[in-house]
Amino acid sequence: MPLRLQPIGHVITKASHEALRHGTAISRIIVNRRFAKGLDGLEDFSHVFVLFWLHEVSNRSRKLKVHPRGRPDIEEVGVFATRSPHRPNPIGLTRVQLMRRKGRTLTVKGLDAYDGTPILDIKPCDRRDAATRLRVPSWCKRLERENQHRHV
Amino acid sequence: MPLRLQPIGHVITKASHEALRHGTAISRIIVNRRFAKGLDGLEDFSHVFVLFWLHEVSNRSRKLKVHPRGRPDIEEVGVFATRSPHRPNPIGLTRVQLMRRKGRTLTVKGLDAYDGTPILDIKPCDRRDAATRLRVPSWCKRLERENQHRHV
Repeated sequence: MPLRLQPIGHVITKASHEALRHGTAISRIIVNRRFAKGLDGLEDFSHVFVLFWLHEVSNRSRKLKVHPRGRPDIEEVGVFATRSPHRPNPIGLTRVQLMRRKGRTLTVKGLDAYDGTPILDIKPCDRRDAATRLRVPSWCKRLERENQHRHV
Repeated sequence: MPLRLQPIGHVITKASHEALRHGTAISRIIVNRRFAKGLDGLEDFSHVFVLFWLHEVSNRSRKLKVHPRGRPDIEEVGVFATRSPHRPNPIGLTRVQLMRRKGRTLTVKGLDAYDGTPILDIKPCDRRDAATRLRVPSWCKRLERENQHRHV
């Protein structure tokens, strides 16, 4: 059975690569007219998960081991232990803040998808998704610390 | 451009539908041999996102408006405002607790996928995914309250 997907919409953004990378970008998601009814009630959630197709990643660049966030100073780990786009199935997943819904246009903060990216799904974020205590590897803590300093 | 996916593994579970539904199921994910190296370092995360193909949902049963968790006593909302499996792209997303990794076998708690479900991706859960304050609609709070009582 072939596993086939269809875009349900696309991203519009003028944010810089820097803003996309650091979770500060403001983007719009335009949902196709035929799926617009599926958004009813989404505006009652503060955060949603956006699933998108990593359309700028070529088949050839898929890898099983990667340096986290492309940083050669951090040891390679398996691609499933990272959010790298070079994955067997090029699906991106990002939790974003839903700032506004107007008809079939969503304004979101924190989406790290380029302008024109096809959207696959939108799912609400509820308490089952919010961990109380997360354990993460030391490379991940290091990256978090660095990002905090950058934003002070 | 067709958007095509490949399974990277599958689910093995003997958990009851009740356990799957309430996040208490213990399941195994067997990753295909050719992708096994991609798991290196995943064991350092306490929680991971599992993306899976909702293979038991037929094309005909896809809807744009649904009753949350199939409950007719809760008003219909758009499918993107729920985690219903009846979505335009049948991708399931669940955050699970990673209990153990042994080679290409993961033991996880809380996966709501049936035995034999094709796995599409595994992604680590870090602090960017953990909201401090989530706003959710009242139907969602009601379901959360009911589930708490059930588990006391």
